[in-house]
Amino acid sequence: MARALELHPDRLFPAEPATRAIARALYAEVAALPIVSPHGHTDPTWFADNANWTDATSLLLAPDHYLYRMLYSQGVDLDALAIPRLSGTPATDPRAAWKLFADHYTLFRGTPSRLWLDHVFADVFGIEVALEASTADRYFDIIGEKLASDAFRPRALFDRFGIEFLATTEGAHDDLAAHKRIRQSGWSGRVVTTYRPDGVIDVEHEAFKPAMARFAELTGEDVYDWKGYLAAHRKRRADFRAAGATATDHGHPTAATANLSGVEAEALFAKVTRGDWTPADAELFRAQMLTEMAAMSVEDGMVMQIHPGSSRNHNAGLFASHGRDKGADIPTRTDYVHALKPLLDRFGTSTRLSIILF
Amino acid sequence: MARALELHPDRLFPAEPATRAIARALYAEVAALPIVSPHGHTDPTWFADNANWTDATSLLLAPDHYLYRMLYSQGVDLDALAIPRLSGTPATDPRAAWKLFADHYTLFRGTPSRLWLDHVFADVFGIEVALEASTADRYFDIIGEKLASDAFRPRALFDRFGIEFLATTEGAHDDLAAHKRIRQSGWSGRVVTTYRPDGVIDVEHEAFKPAMARFAELTGEDVYDWKGYLAAHRKRRADFRAAGATATDHGHPTAATANLSGVEAEALFAKVTRGDWTPADAELFRAQMLTEMAAMSVEDGMVMQIHPGSSRNHNAGLFASHGRDKGADIPTRTDYVHALKPLLDRFGTSTRLSIILF
Amino acid sequence: MARALELHPDRLFPAEPATRAIARALYAEVAALPIVSPHGHTDPTWFADNANWTDATSLLLAPDHYLYRMLYSQGVDLDALAIPRLSGTPATDPRAAWKLFADHYTLFRGTPSRLWLDHVFADVFGIEVALEASTADRYFDIIGEKLASDAFRPRALFDRFGIEFLATTEGAHDDLAAHKRIRQSGWSGRVVTTYRPDGVIDVEHEAFKPAMARFAELTGEDVYDWKGYLAAHRKRRADFRAAGATATDHGHPTAATANLSGVEAEALFAKVTRGDWTPADAELFRAQMLTEMAAMSVEDGMVMQIHPGSSRNHNAGLFASHGRDKGADIPTRTDYVHALKPLLDRFGTSTRLSIILF
Repeated sequence: MARALELHPDRLFPAEPATRAIARALYAEVAALPIVSPHGHTDPTWFADNANWTDATSLLLAPDHYLYRMLYSQGVDLDALAIPRLSGTPATDPRAAWKLFADHYTLFRGTPSRLWLDHVFADVFGIEVALEASTADRYFDIIGEKLASDAFRPRALFDRFGIEFLATTEGAHDDLAAHKRIRQSGWSGRVVTTYRPDGVIDVEHEAFKPAMARFAELTGEDVYDWKGYLAAHRKRRADFRAAGATATDHGHPTAATANLSGVEAEALFAKVTRGDWTPADAELFRAQMLTEMAAMSVEDGMVMQIHPGSSRNHNAGLFASHGRDKGADIPTRTDYVHALKPLLDRFGTSTRLSIILF
Repeated sequence: MARALELHPDRLFPAEPATRAIARALYAEVAALPIVSPHGHTDPTWFADNANWTDATSLLLAPDHYLYRMLYSQGVDLDALAIPRLSGTPATDPRAAWKLFADHYTLFRGTPSRLWLDHVFADVFGIEVALEASTADRYFDIIGEKLASDAFRPRALFDRFGIEFLATTEGAHDDLAAHKRIRQSGWSGRVVTTYRPDGVIDVEHEAFKPAMARFAELTGEDVYDWKGYLAAHRKRRADFRAAGATATDHGHPTAATANLSGVEAEALFAKVTRGDWTPADAELFRAQMLTEMAAMSVEDGMVMQIHPGSSRNHNAGLFASHGRDKGADIPTRTDYVHALKPLLDRFGTSTRLSIILF
Repeated sequence: MARALELHPDRLFPAEPATRAIARALYAEVAALPIVSPHGHTDPTWFADNANWTDATSLLLAPDHYLYRMLYSQGVDLDALAIPRLSGTPATDPRAAWKLFADHYTLFRGTPSRLWLDHVFADVFGIEVALEASTADRYFDIIGEKLASDAFRPRALFDRFGIEFLATTEGAHDDLAAHKRIRQSGWSGRVVTTYRPDGVIDVEHEAFKPAMARFAELTGEDVYDWKGYLAAHRKRRADFRAAGATATDHGHPTAATANLSGVEAEALFAKVTRGDWTPADAELFRAQMLTEMAAMSVEDGMVMQIHPGSSRNHNAGLFASHGRDKGADIPTRTDYVHALKPLLDRFGTSTRLSIILF
């Protein structure tokens, strides 16, 4: 007999009755508001194609590094969880991967991951028993059936969740094809892109060169010349705005900004694109580019989002076998006060510039 | 109909009943005690001249950078708030500035500034309606009338507030004229000065040179010679003690201290007073001077107050137009453990030295 | 009439009733479990010899730097508290030292030290009045009498406290004689050692040279040769495992690790053992040795404990007169993310390596 899955209506609220009552009152005021999600971490092809998702593992487990990183830390094999390698996705039965996850679900007691998943299981899928070894199959079946229905296709869920605005994030070298398909489809949902140029700014990224080549192709600019490079950014920002973008997004290792003279910036750009840069050059170039992006935001009104402070790809072995964004990022201390000063010295008092730090 | 201004008697206390009862009991024991304010941030001419303040804006708004910095962050013009520029105070009607502040008072919900101001409005001025656009005139009138009365002159408020001891802060190059007038007036209130020599120690301060010239004038010492410079500090410390001072105060960017030999200290002093110093020299000189001040405190018994860790004048534009202390200081992390070791290695076990860090 | 010593049954639990009830329920589940103490800070000769302790001062006060460091900070003389100097233990009457401590016991209100001591006084010694000047003699008498009884000898207390496993910590140059006596005695208590090689790794330690000499003597290896030095560590790790050790312990100033090539490591070792090292060399050698220890842990299965981040011997005068571990250590910020990466790059994915950070 499986345990019931019950969401405590006051979960995450204070235990003390007076403050709990205030929390309930505040929550009641906002609970039914539409969702405005300016940093949505979703794939625009979902809404472009509106195809059904297939199963619990490929939707909920394989893309969520918070889940499989926890399992990995306890010795669970990533291949057995169907986590894609650089060399391809392992031929693991999705149902078997889901069962393995369910076997270890107790590991997530008290974590945000479990609070979130239990909410999804109960409120989105209507499941009434807790996830554990004995219910893994039932879960896999129920979720699979629902995902095959029209009510669980991406646009239907977008409506059901009351989403008013959703921004995805695409690189400067992305052709925005999915967003074009969304607009051409006539669907009323507001899904827009966000300009995230890290791939053509971070010379330490392993895919910097192909990203630059694509950046050149998409803009027709000489992106290996400083002026052409800046012109290419302006063109793509315009492309992104045309696809609904209202913001840019910058995931640098630190919040460092710089305020080089035009001559210095051009010389630094020449050095980093030639390839004979040091890590300090790469950092200074990223820093200077935040200030250049701020200058363009003053021109075109796009909001800047800066989210620094992650030490990425900390697990060298995992990075080699599975690549980026596999749960091996660790938050680190960020100095905003000194780091942002060069940018703020130039644009900090402009009423045309909005920066969101997170 | 304006909303009532009501101060919750348990504001700032815990919500949970058992701990709230303890907080009430503790507060009841101290609420009526006299105020001993060793770091009072007040102007000694208030108590020397005992003149009436004139209006709400010039007393409560224009000098309080916590207030106008918040308004500035939301795009309110500082001139319209009557905030003094380096070039002079703008010719703004104080009543209009107060109304502008009242229009934006909702911005301060939940801030210490509002908790404090509402206390001042209710308890000091006896106002019974909340500050908002519709009550701004009424506030300006009531506060202006009260400030014109004898009961609201500085010495009367000093007595009403139950102040037993109040220390102001003056620079090493201040003639202490106001404090002399206080003592000569025969008034019984105990208002003393504090020796804050930053102006003649921080060579990065824009007014270092005129401060040094005045320091020489007031002491008759050759302050451009290391021994004369130290002798001048000793003389002024004696002057300050004669004016009631019991403490010194040091607002350095960091808590760094140094323990140079006499020869090294003299050479560093020569370098920084000649003007060919680097930022590192300026920092090392401030560090060495904290240790020299500690040495003098061991001699004369003055308590040292060190309050480092503010990144000052962060807004370059505001610094250029309005100068220092205009709300553009940001707290930063301070390393006390390593920074204070050189000073403590020399004087840390002396029972004659008291240091207050904050 | 002395005040009663009463331990609140809910001390350290939340005040709010709902969470307090949960805390009580959780505590009730674990309160009677046996103690497994992997980092026990006890002296193995206690259990080897099972001799009676003599008095309150030498057992509870003189070895506890949390206590006398607080008293010292308030001007109490360490000699009067019978705290050992490097030159020998002062000829202070233990009862007089205890009285002095009792006179100042109010200083400890609200500290973990007092929570702990009151528990010891009430639950271990059965004392029913609070410690204060008027009860100091009574305390000294009661504690002395109990300590003289069989029920208060080390092994009896070990049993009474329900200790299932206790690990002490010994240096790489320790002969483990006490642990041998424990095993040879036939006593059933499980007290094991832990391999703490800091003394032969930290070239900045004032006793590095004699520790190395003893390390050579105990192992028969040429410890001044890199290969011999590593072989000596392997031998001593085996010795420690034979004495029950399951873990190593490393108390470095930082968590820095390094991943030098064999040639680089050998050259660094030659430099630091020759004696012409800089502080940076000493730090790099400690860093490299953490990685070498991890390599050996992968071989022999010993758990690594790393507890960095203490700025030790901060009080130069106290270090000169009284030596190490006299309450002059200050916790500092530790960067684990970057510091551990070199070690983890080599061994982080090995399932044979367990590291405990604290």
